Amino acid sequence: MKITELINQIRNKKSFLCVGLDTDLEKIPAHLLQEEDPIFEFNKAIIEATQAYCVAYKPNLAFYEAYGLQGWKALEKTMAFLNEKYPEQFTIADAKRGDIGNTATRYARAFFEQLHFDAITVAPYMGKDSVEPFLEFKNKHTILLALTSNPGAFDFQTKEYQGSSLYQQVITTSQSYKHAKNLMYVVGATKATFLKEIRQLIPNSFLLVPGIGAQGGSLEEVCANGMTNTIGLLVNSSRGIIYAAKDKGFAQKAKEKALELQQLMAVELEKRKL
Amino acid sequence: MKITELINQIRNKKSFLCVGLDTDLEKIPAHLLQEEDPIFEFNKAIIEATQAYCVAYKPNLAFYEAYGLQGWKALEKTMAFLNEKYPEQFTIADAKRGDIGNTATRYARAFFEQLHFDAITVAPYMGKDSVEPFLEFKNKHTILLALTSNPGAFDFQTKEYQGSSLYQQVITTSQSYKHAKNLMYVVGATKATFLKEIRQLIPNSFLLVPGIGAQGGSLEEVCANGMTNTIGLLVNSSRGIIYAAKDKGFAQKAKEKALELQQLMAVELEKRKL
Repeated sequence: MKITELINQIRNKKSFLCVGLDTDLEKIPAHLLQEEDPIFEFNKAIIEATQAYCVAYKPNLAFYEAYGLQGWKALEKTMAFLNEKYPEQFTIADAKRGDIGNTATRYARAFFEQLHFDAITVAPYMGKDSVEPFLEFKNKHTILLALTSNPGAFDFQTKEYQGSSLYQQVITTSQSYKHAKNLMYVVGATKATFLKEIRQLIPNSFLLVPGIGAQGGSLEEVCANGMTNTIGLLVNSSRGIIYAAKDKGFAQKAKEKALELQQLMAVELEKRKL
Repeated sequence: MKITELINQIRNKKSFLCVGLDTDLEKIPAHLLQEEDPIFEFNKAIIEATQAYCVAYKPNLAFYEAYGLQGWKALEKTMAFLNEKYPEQFTIADAKRGDIGNTATRYARAFFEQLHFDAITVAPYMGKDSVEPFLEFKNKHTILLALTSNPGAFDFQTKEYQGSSLYQQVITTSQSYKHAKNLMYVVGATKATFLKEIRQLIPNSFLLVPGIGAQGGSLEEVCANGMTNTIGLLVNSSRGIIYAAKDKGFAQKAKEKALELQQLMAVELEKRKL
């Protein structure tokens, strides 16, 4: 998907919400467990209920891999369903992969070509030759971990070296990679105050922002510090939406939670006449 | 597997060779493509041919994920075969995963409990709460990326901050994590000269060393700088063994290549009376 198509979708829906499909058999409503493919049935219901209020879906691969073949089958079905029924949705494989050269190319093909994701999250630790293979794919997007929303982010990411912190180095160094225009970055909402200085490094890049809600980040602060003229933000919510209720009304409740966030987002867009 | 069992196996076989199962349908012998599961048939033949000369197998997950369901099925079969027929082999999921809290736990369960791997490679960028969930599993091993063998390692890993480089910080910081005794580290053979200073930080930890052969690292140098009283090294070779020949004699050729490395390793162990 071209970035302009994503921006148009955001403008049409007045939403920059990404729904995280972290589907866990221990957390989905019990009545779904009788279905042949409970993971897919849950995802389908969540997608149908929320698609009008969000612009992106982000399955976290760990949840699917945890169920082996059954999980992969459910992921394939979910992606086929999304691409057929809601092709306008931006799809992100939250895989946090990072490997070298031809191995990275393998991952890129798996996610971009076999599963038809628009984007994948990638870890920067192994540097250039672990990131560039992903960047080669046209109209596909590589979302590099920069500053994550978890406490462990302070172990290495925020440490200063040679005058700037690691996450800043990741941003500036990666901007010199070939096809860097296909880069986006993960910046946690719990670090909203860092967004101002990140915007000095990358004034226009899209940021994927987890950590709103369950992890305590504020949408207003994220927008105040991170929004650009072309929006530049995808804000993710997973548990707060998909597990808002555990009974038969789970999809309706997910819809309400997505709508709630969409309305807050519409206000932020309106404020800035975007 | 307990670390003592791995060390005993190394002593018995006079080998600390790990064979990388980076199985690629474009590179395996053409006659195997007629089999129902060419990936598994290839792996099985390679394992049968090399198992006497190596102590570990390391499938790189990218190669399996690239083939979707077919790949996962082949991986499951490979692991079932290994665990049933050669339970003494140490098995490493080369996954380079890294995600937070309960998501990391999902990955850990997928690889340790569902696929019964002994170890998994993990990326350190997200810090403590992305690594500790893996360390909780008893007699399972977490192999943290420290200094990798690719050129991109110089993008961030070797950058100095606050007096030491990032990979050194990764090593020292991770040693303070809970259950740190379950940690091993990836250190590329192409950086053998760094091994001396790494051994000052972690005199006893096992290191997984890729980059021998195809990537140009020297076994002798690796041993001179990295070997400990309890060996402390697993040296990986992938392409140099599994793709040594592309014809019907591929398994025999793989055996010869594995034997060649094992004999060099026996010399290194002998030199040090280990």
